[in-house]
Amino acid sequence: MKQSKLFTKTSKQVPADADSANAKFLVQAGFVDQVMAGVYTYLPLGLRTLQKIQNIVREEMNDIGGQEIYMPALAPKENWQATGRWDDLDVLFKLDGAGDKEYALGATHEEIVTPLAKKFARSYKDFPFAVYQIQDKFRNELRCKSGILRGREFNMKDLYSFHTSVEDMEAYYQKALEAYKNVFVRCGINALVTEASGGSFSKWSHEFQMPTESGEDTIYVNEAGDYAWNNELFPDMKDGDDAPDKSGKVKEIKAIEVGNIFPLKTKYSEAFKYNYIDENGEEKPVMMGCYGIGPSRTMGAIVEANHDDKGMIWPKSVAPFAVHLVSLGSKDETIQDRIDTVSEAVYTDLQKAGIEVLWNDRTDQSFGEKFADADLIGLPLRLVVSEKTLAEDSIEWKERASTDMRLVKIQSAVEEVASWVKE
Amino acid sequence: MKQSKLFTKTSKQVPADADSANAKFLVQAGFVDQVMAGVYTYLPLGLRTLQKIQNIVREEMNDIGGQEIYMPALAPKENWQATGRWDDLDVLFKLDGAGDKEYALGATHEEIVTPLAKKFARSYKDFPFAVYQIQDKFRNELRCKSGILRGREFNMKDLYSFHTSVEDMEAYYQKALEAYKNVFVRCGINALVTEASGGSFSKWSHEFQMPTESGEDTIYVNEAGDYAWNNELFPDMKDGDDAPDKSGKVKEIKAIEVGNIFPLKTKYSEAFKYNYIDENGEEKPVMMGCYGIGPSRTMGAIVEANHDDKGMIWPKSVAPFAVHLVSLGSKDETIQDRIDTVSEAVYTDLQKAGIEVLWNDRTDQSFGEKFADADLIGLPLRLVVSEKTLAEDSIEWKERASTDMRLVKIQSAVEEVASWVKE
Repeated sequence: MKQSKLFTKTSKQVPADADSANAKFLVQAGFVDQVMAGVYTYLPLGLRTLQKIQNIVREEMNDIGGQEIYMPALAPKENWQATGRWDDLDVLFKLDGAGDKEYALGATHEEIVTPLAKKFARSYKDFPFAVYQIQDKFRNELRCKSGILRGREFNMKDLYSFHTSVEDMEAYYQKALEAYKNVFVRCGINALVTEASGGSFSKWSHEFQMPTESGEDTIYVNEAGDYAWNNELFPDMKDGDDAPDKSGKVKEIKAIEVGNIFPLKTKYSEAFKYNYIDENGEEKPVMMGCYGIGPSRTMGAIVEANHDDKGMIWPKSVAPFAVHLVSLGSKDETIQDRIDTVSEAVYTDLQKAGIEVLWNDRTDQSFGEKFADADLIGLPLRLVVSEKTLAEDSIEWKERASTDMRLVKIQSAVEEVASWVKE
Repeated sequence: MKQSKLFTKTSKQVPADADSANAKFLVQAGFVDQVMAGVYTYLPLGLRTLQKIQNIVREEMNDIGGQEIYMPALAPKENWQATGRWDDLDVLFKLDGAGDKEYALGATHEEIVTPLAKKFARSYKDFPFAVYQIQDKFRNELRCKSGILRGREFNMKDLYSFHTSVEDMEAYYQKALEAYKNVFVRCGINALVTEASGGSFSKWSHEFQMPTESGEDTIYVNEAGDYAWNNELFPDMKDGDDAPDKSGKVKEIKAIEVGNIFPLKTKYSEAFKYNYIDENGEEKPVMMGCYGIGPSRTMGAIVEANHDDKGMIWPKSVAPFAVHLVSLGSKDETIQDRIDTVSEAVYTDLQKAGIEVLWNDRTDQSFGEKFADADLIGLPLRLVVSEKTLAEDSIEWKERASTDMRLVKIQSAVEEVASWVKE
C-alpha cells in the first residue's frame, strides 16, 4: 500500500491519557483511534495486525477440531437468569428491548453456547465436540485503562468443548493448552502457563501470563521458567518461597494475562439441564471446558513486549506489512526520477512476490519524519531508496529489531527480502 | 469436512415462526440458530457462506480504493446528540455505562466515522478517500420477521467516502454503484438499480432491489428490466404507468432491498463541523457519500431467490462447500469396504485439489435421509458413491440446480470436478 493513500497519519503528540506503551504507540502510529475510554476503532494498519492474530488463533483452533461459529452479542434476559449471572455479573450490559423484553450484551457466551449445543448433541455418540467463535465482547468496566488491554468492547476467541466424562474433558484441555502455547509462540510473545484458581467447581484453571513490568497481575515463576502460579491461587506466596510443586524457589514477577482455559465441568450444563443419554439409556450431565484468548488484548500485549522509546517492533507474523519501503527525496530532478523509478519497481516486484509492503511515497515529509514514522510504526524491515544508496546501485536494509544497516544491490533486493520473509 | 464430525444436524421440523424460505431452510439445514426474534447464531455451514459473501464484498470495496477499518458498536451519547439521532432514531439501543454515562449501540456509523475522518484529513490534499468496515449493527426493531432478512443484530458492510466537491462525490458514487453490481452478480443474485428518495438533503439515492414474490418492497421496473423506481419515491405510480424517464411502461413487482447508496453531501460534516482547507486557505464543508450492503441480509436474499420445495440451491461462489460427497451403505462387507475406500480417496484428492467438500460419511442415516440432507443443504454438486455406482467403476454426478444425473469414472472424477469448479 502507498502511504500517501493511507487516510491515517502518525502523530507526534502522546495521547493525554496514555498509561502504557500500547495506548501510546498504537494511537500515535495510527493503528487505533479511541472513541471513548476502553472503546477503540481499528484503523487500516491496526486492523491488519488484528486480523493476522485472529487467523493464527483460527488455524490453531481448527487444528484441535474446533468448529467455527458466530454467536450474537444480544441475548434474552432468560438465558442469563438461568445461570444467575443476570444479577451476579456486575459488568453485564443490560438493554431494554421490544415491548417489556430485556436483553444482555454478551460479556461471555456460556449462556448462549450451552442451549445451542443442547439442541444438537444429546446422544453419547455425538460427543466430544468443540465450537469456537471470534467475536466482540462487551463489559461495563467501571474504569478502563492500559489502551486495548482492558476494554469495554473487545475482540475475543472463545472455544467451548463438550464431553461425556471428566477424563475426556481433561485430555482435550491438554490439547487446548498446547494449541494456546502455539498461538503465543507464533505471535512472538512468551506466555507462561500459570496455575490459577478454578472457582467453586474446579481445583484449578490455567492462565497464560506474559511477563512484563507493566503487567497488572503478580505471578510466581518456577526456577526452570516454564510454569507459574497466580497470586490469587496462592495469596500468601512471596518471592523466594518454595514452589508449590517442590521444584525449587519461585520468583515474583509482573505479567499480563493473554489467555485462560477453564474446566467448567457441569457448571453450565446443570444450569441449562443439559444431559446426554449414555450407552445404557441413562441421562448424565455433559462436561464442559472453556478456552479464551483476546486477539485485541494479545495485540496490546505484543506492543508491551516489543517496543523501544521510538516505537513498536512488530514480529513478522503479525506486522501489518512485512516491509516499509521508504523513498527519500532529492533536489536533483534526474536523481529524483531515478529514486521514483527504482522505488516503484521494488514496490511492484515485492507485491508480485507476495510480500506485503507499505511504501512511504509521500512528498511532504522530511528525511527525519520518514525515519521517525518507520520506527514508530515498527514494520520488521525498512528498505530505504535514496540518492546515497543509488550511488551504490543499492538499497539500504535495516531491520527494526536491530541497529545494523547494510546495502543490498537493487537487482537482488526482492529475492533477499523473499528469503528473509521465509526465515 | 466429514459430516459425522459436524456438531449440527438437519431437522425435518419446520420452525414454528418460519415466515419465509430463508427462515425455514437456513434453520432446518443447520446454517443458523435463532437465539431470539431477529437474533441468530451462525453455525459452521452458515458462517462459511457468510464469510464468503463478506470476502466478495471486501474484494470489491478494496477495488474501489476502500480502506478497511473496524469501528466499535459502543459510542458515547454525545456523538449521537451531535446529529440529533439520539432522540430521532427510534431503533437506537441506549445503554447505561460507567458513572452517569450513556452509550448508544451502533445502528449505523456516520456518528463515529465523521469525527474519525476529521482527526486525520483536513487539507484538500488529503481528499478524496473512502473507508469501510464489515461489522455488526444493532437496531431495536419492534417486530422482526423474515429470518435473517431483518434482524435486531445483523452484519453490515458500510463504506463512507469523503470529497471536496459534489462532482467528485458523484463520480465516486458511480464507481461504487458499479462495484455493488459486481457484488450481487458474484453472489448469484439479480439486483436492480432502483431510484429511491434522497431524504431532505439529496434529490435521490439508489437501492439495489432483488425481485422476489416474498419481498416487502414494491418497485416499478422499466421495460428493459435494468432500472427501477421505488414506490416511496413515486407513491402514486401504478403498474403500466409511464416510466419517469419516458422509456416506456413500468411493471410493478415485489422485491427485497439488498443494498443502498446515498449521497449524504454535507449532512454529517455540518453536524460535526467537519470542514477542509482549500487551495486558498478557506474552510469548506466536506462532501460525503455512504454505501451499505448487509452480508447477512444478502445471504437470506440468496436463499429467497435460490430454493425449491426440497431446500436451498447455493451458487458456487457462496456455497459453504462446493461438493457434497455422499457415501451410501451396503450390507455386503466387502462392498462396504470398497465404498469407504473410494469415498475416502475421492475426499482426500478433492481436498488436495483445493476443492471444498462436505463428506456425508454418517453410518446412522438411510439413503433417503442422505439424499434429503443433500437437497436441503443445497451444495452445488452432489457426488454419490454406492454399490450401484461402483459396479460401473463410477460415481454419480448430480448438480443441485439440475435434475440430470450421470456417472463419471472414479479415475477422472476429481479432475472433472476441478474443471467444473472453475467454470
